[in-house]
Amino acid sequence: MAAYPPALLRLITNLSRLPGVGEKTATRLALQILRWPREEAVELARSIASLHEKVCLCSHCLNFAETDPCPICADQSRRSDQLCVVEDPAALMAVEKSGVFRGRYHVLHGLLSPRDGIGPQELRIKELLSRIPKEGIREIILALSPTAPGEATAAYLRDVLNRSGVRVSRIACGVPMGMEIKYVDEMTLRLAIEGRRDLSA
Amino acid sequence: MAAYPPALLRLITNLSRLPGVGEKTATRLALQILRWPREEAVELARSIASLHEKVCLCSHCLNFAETDPCPICADQSRRSDQLCVVEDPAALMAVEKSGVFRGRYHVLHGLLSPRDGIGPQELRIKELLSRIPKEGIREIILALSPTAPGEATAAYLRDVLNRSGVRVSRIACGVPMGMEIKYVDEMTLRLAIEGRRDLSA
Repeated sequence: MAAYPPALLRLITNLSRLPGVGEKTATRLALQILRWPREEAVELARSIASLHEKVCLCSHCLNFAETDPCPICADQSRRSDQLCVVEDPAALMAVEKSGVFRGRYHVLHGLLSPRDGIGPQELRIKELLSRIPKEGIREIILALSPTAPGEATAAYLRDVLNRSGVRVSRIACGVPMGMEIKYVDEMTLRLAIEGRRDLSA
Repeated sequence: MAAYPPALLRLITNLSRLPGVGEKTATRLALQILRWPREEAVELARSIASLHEKVCLCSHCLNFAETDPCPICADQSRRSDQLCVVEDPAALMAVEKSGVFRGRYHVLHGLLSPRDGIGPQELRIKELLSRIPKEGIREIILALSPTAPGEATAAYLRDVLNRSGVRVSRIACGVPMGMEIKYVDEMTLRLAIEGRRDLSA
């Protein structure tokens, strides 16, 4: 029985290591790259190869950046006493895109998940605690997903941070914009009702 | 508002050009590559860069290969008078994996799709026709998907090939293995009944 050429199999194997990419998807992607003009494939290869050279972690917020401190931590117009704690750089970007938060961030690079062997030591919690006295942090907003690992992480951080005397809050859980109430699961709806905002004058 | 670092954005842009990969998926993949050990990212980059150097089209069947002729066309134990016409290398691999076909292949590199501006000139039909006298082809099996473009291509090739005097057949459409009859759409079932095989002794 025939097989794909070795160079193609090598790429399929490498692409299969990406999250959510199985052998079938990897094969489809590899065959597509083979159809591209050669210079576009080379450009993709270069952008992957140069990624680790150029991108580092900001030593303050631990977000991916090409400078240290990153543009957000270096921005003097942002509040320096307020930290928003996020799971990863993608969550940071989502909060940043909302445009409502004008303090600084702290990236945990993960969530607690005992099942996967991820305990507090695996997250950047030590770094978070050391920032509180060093940067004079007064409020920490936990922008963690309302999922099992997000809940566990928020509960753990609440306990740890309360001991440090800093004010701790967590972003609201509720019905997302544009979603019809009848399609919302009961747990979300319960939290949305419990977290109702007073509109009385 | 902050953005991802330029090196990350460059990779996200490049990955977004892959089929089925939108900006969100590209971002997820790029962030994952950034989490990999550097040498694994470099290996992925190298496998992409070397793809076009190493892989060419077999001048006989037009399949992707690292040699010309490809291993299948060079295999003297395979029938040389029988061609299986497929849409692309992935379809060829599927037929080959079935293990039942022992002739040679011809890859069209697409299917007719007037809506997308793909006419007979865009497919490798001229090359197919020239192989018939040159290689003494006696039978051509159309292994084309039972989709609208597959039907159109099969109908077109049937007309063209019938004029060349070669025997033309098309693989059967029917109920797939393991599928319950009650879940099969009516068009498939109709074709399966029309194409029923005689089991009488």
